Amino acid sequence: MSSIFSKIIEGSIPCHKITEDERHFAFLDINPLAKGHALVVPKKEVDYLFDLENDDYLSLMQFVKKVSLAVEKAIFCKRVGLMVVGTEVPHAHVHVIPFASEGQMCVKNPKLTFTSKEFEEIASRISNFL
Amino acid sequence: MSSIFSKIIEGSIPCHKITEDERHFAFLDINPLAKGHALVVPKKEVDYLFDLENDDYLSLMQFVKKVSLAVEKAIFCKRVGLMVVGTEVPHAHVHVIPFASEGQMCVKNPKLTFTSKEFEEIASRISNFL
Repeated sequence: MSSIFSKIIEGSIPCHKITEDERHFAFLDINPLAKGHALVVPKKEVDYLFDLENDDYLSLMQFVKKVSLAVEKAIFCKRVGLMVVGTEVPHAHVHVIPFASEGQMCVKNPKLTFTSKEFEEIASRISNFL
Repeated sequence: MSSIFSKIIEGSIPCHKITEDERHFAFLDINPLAKGHALVVPKKEVDYLFDLENDDYLSLMQFVKKVSLAVEKAIFCKRVGLMVVGTEVPHAHVHVIPFASEGQMCVKNPKLTFTSKEFEEIASRISNFL
């Protein structure tokens, strides 16, 4: 069975897409810890980040950097942080989180809510820097 | 002025070292969120992860993977998570955190305490898998 992320990638579940290339896909986390919180995933469905082939792992981390730099330009923040937890969905993913204070880097924090229109505007603003 | 991590790398400040190579250094976080919580740093002193030259960034992420796999073998955990926050010390670093529950991935959690002997044993156990 496809993971929810594979369904997002193939378009059968909607998302607020930021960008993609042949091997990677980036979109906004629907339960964000901060405005602009994005998820970067490999199109290849592998549960655990470290189970990716080495080339795929490095390629993903390269894409993470590219997305992070765009997020940093698009969203007012102190810095962009990264988090890999990976237990929420069995499809490797890296959280890209533009934070104003480091306390935002906490999976237990209440999630922010945005309207669909706001999410679209945020995704589009980040896309413009790619 | 050298960062505290540069002083750790050159040996003028003690640490519980896990491993190093020409370009990277890994040691236990002295204020860990979990048993086995490690820090992986480039020897080159750059404040922000994304300011590293691309080759240095990818090389660091490769080293992070190597250390993470050793931490996972050495420490009883559900999985190894990663966190990049970077505001604590102006020297790029990646947190490698073996967690039992995802709630441990939170910078605001109280830090664990271990004796020097316990830290040494944890570092040595991880080193044995490298």
